[in-house]
Amino acid sequence: MRQHAKLNFSLDEYADRLDKTRAAMVTKDIDCLVVVDPSNMGWLTGYDGWSFYTHQCVILQHDQAPIWWGRGIDAPGAVRTSYLDSDHILGYPDYFVQSDSCHPMDHLSGVLTELKLEQASIGVEMENYYFSAAAFQSLQQHLPAARLVDATALVNWQRIIKSEQELIYMRSAARIVEKMHAHIYNIIEPGLAKHELAAEIFYTGIKGVDEHWGDYPAILPLLPTGMDATAAHLTWDDSRLKAGDITFFEIAGCHRRYHCPLSRTISLGKPPQKYLDAEKAVLDAMHAGLENAKPGKLCEDIAIAFYDRLEKHGFNKDNRTGYSIGMSYPPDWGERTISLRRGDKTELQKNMTFHFMPALWLDDGGLEITESVVLTDNGYERLANVEQALLVK
Amino acid sequence: MRQHAKLNFSLDEYADRLDKTRAAMVTKDIDCLVVVDPSNMGWLTGYDGWSFYTHQCVILQHDQAPIWWGRGIDAPGAVRTSYLDSDHILGYPDYFVQSDSCHPMDHLSGVLTELKLEQASIGVEMENYYFSAAAFQSLQQHLPAARLVDATALVNWQRIIKSEQELIYMRSAARIVEKMHAHIYNIIEPGLAKHELAAEIFYTGIKGVDEHWGDYPAILPLLPTGMDATAAHLTWDDSRLKAGDITFFEIAGCHRRYHCPLSRTISLGKPPQKYLDAEKAVLDAMHAGLENAKPGKLCEDIAIAFYDRLEKHGFNKDNRTGYSIGMSYPPDWGERTISLRRGDKTELQKNMTFHFMPALWLDDGGLEITESVVLTDNGYERLANVEQALLVK
Repeated sequence: MRQHAKLNFSLDEYADRLDKTRAAMVTKDIDCLVVVDPSNMGWLTGYDGWSFYTHQCVILQHDQAPIWWGRGIDAPGAVRTSYLDSDHILGYPDYFVQSDSCHPMDHLSGVLTELKLEQASIGVEMENYYFSAAAFQSLQQHLPAARLVDATALVNWQRIIKSEQELIYMRSAARIVEKMHAHIYNIIEPGLAKHELAAEIFYTGIKGVDEHWGDYPAILPLLPTGMDATAAHLTWDDSRLKAGDITFFEIAGCHRRYHCPLSRTISLGKPPQKYLDAEKAVLDAMHAGLENAKPGKLCEDIAIAFYDRLEKHGFNKDNRTGYSIGMSYPPDWGERTISLRRGDKTELQKNMTFHFMPALWLDDGGLEITESVVLTDNGYERLANVEQALLVK
Repeated sequence: MRQHAKLNFSLDEYADRLDKTRAAMVTKDIDCLVVVDPSNMGWLTGYDGWSFYTHQCVILQHDQAPIWWGRGIDAPGAVRTSYLDSDHILGYPDYFVQSDSCHPMDHLSGVLTELKLEQASIGVEMENYYFSAAAFQSLQQHLPAARLVDATALVNWQRIIKSEQELIYMRSAARIVEKMHAHIYNIIEPGLAKHELAAEIFYTGIKGVDEHWGDYPAILPLLPTGMDATAAHLTWDDSRLKAGDITFFEIAGCHRRYHCPLSRTISLGKPPQKYLDAEKAVLDAMHAGLENAKPGKLCEDIAIAFYDRLEKHGFNKDNRTGYSIGMSYPPDWGERTISLRRGDKTELQKNMTFHFMPALWLDDGGLEITESVVLTDNGYERLANVEQALLVK
């Protein structure tokens, strides 16, 4: 392992992550893990680059350092950003890229065979953006004697409790998202075009605040207005805001790949009574939910308390109301482990981090007032400090 | 089909796309196509949203309008952005999202069964970011009598020749990337931090130029300096530029999801002779390649002419030197069809569009001077007009 300036964590912290992950491999009888999720690759090795659009992975065994495997032209990126020695960085030839006659995973099978893993128990992330059906077929075909085991989210689950250094980065992201929301409120007005507003959001988020420089968020800004806000995930166009418009801003600050998502909603002028009622309901229900945000409670406790209180106000929500957050790459800033919803009986622990997401998508618009929190010894701390309200300007 | 303000193309153009795609389905004996690639979904139906982090698709049959299927909270987004009638927009319940006890594709199997397709020949995009190994397994398990056929890139291949309206959008994207490069050159100087530069690039790209408003590019800005530029896909941090630094900017303008990628390299001060030699080699070899950019030639003709000329200058490149471009979503702005490399014998045709990408990643830095082009009746047109040089400031 090589310490160098670009590493975001100490070698000890990376070693600890490897230990945890290997222990989880043992419980599933996995000899070797093929880690394709870019956030898992980065969490285990430090690797960081926009190279996930071609196949790549970290090969993790029990008895030797991880191996980075990817496209040849990206191997120097692993040298630059990870702690791996160059003999643990393997590039495949470029003719494998987006070819219809061969698949990069054909090459990986050769690598695994050279490592004498052709009869091993190999964990793969079956449910991942970066492990396609064709990737799996290639491994099945070229490693017929191996046992391919579903290891979806095995590494993600090791990430749910954050280290102090991770929390430092998430607090940096919180400073950034605070500034983003303050800037939005400052400049929003009738006549402003949505793409101009989006440009300002990007600028503020990437510039960051003092030493808290902005990295790119894993979900780009969502800022739908009016009827567009009946949908959860629309981005922007060049339409101009008008008096009376209600817009939600689902955005995140990001620092060294760590996220602090936070949504707020702004009304240009006095909002209709329905939205004031919705605001009251969401805030009250959110606080009811957050009363359960403490070690010893279950994830679903937060959600159920929220749903129940919301219903008393005459509003309904049947979709999940939050998820674990931390390090991520596009297309999702969630950790894809814990969900705040009925049935998730994960016990809450100190230093878990969530985006509590009590969004309402109504029949004529949307309302998002959300919080990112870290659990403390006996409660929670809001990561960012932005007024909890349907903001009016 | 519903015409509305957000549609970027006429209903006739969408109808034509459906016709082309259905004809391609016939050649593969496909009754029903399950289209998960977000750019294919958008190209076929107009649908646009950052919802691809949960499973979704367009179901395309021969004898009825396409059906959008996705997460319930995203269904209103399909109403807002696609031409589909509401009875062709199907949402699945939220408990399927990122669950470890059920998979959204279990629900899709139910939908396909209701459509009496449980014994049909169903095309799936086996090699796609948005078709995981687990998604395929779910369909196999729940549709045992169906014939699942690999339809990877079937829709993408229908997109390789651009319509006039698509070219209008790509030219808008070209105006944007021209402005981005002009702005970078204006502000770059020793002392500027990389994230500040990235913030300016985002601002310029999203704000756009006049009516050419900026959409988000499918690859975010890459701007590695010095040794970091030995790698192909690093993004940025907060390090400050110094006199003598050489930085490449791999960026794209984007308008209504259509891209014009363009890379340039800037040296702060006189570059070393090696880079001047590399510049000369790349430009000469690029022009040799582009002499073959005309209908009737093959894709590999461009690449081979480039490689051969480059070698005469004493430089080598063994990775692909370009690809088809157009509409895209993260994580890749390429169309994942044509590659400019040896062995790609696709015949060039008018209105194909490429990012010709003769990048060199050397042992102490990188040089990228690229062009996005559209093929004309007897040659090519550069989409963007930015000085073809290793720029010095």
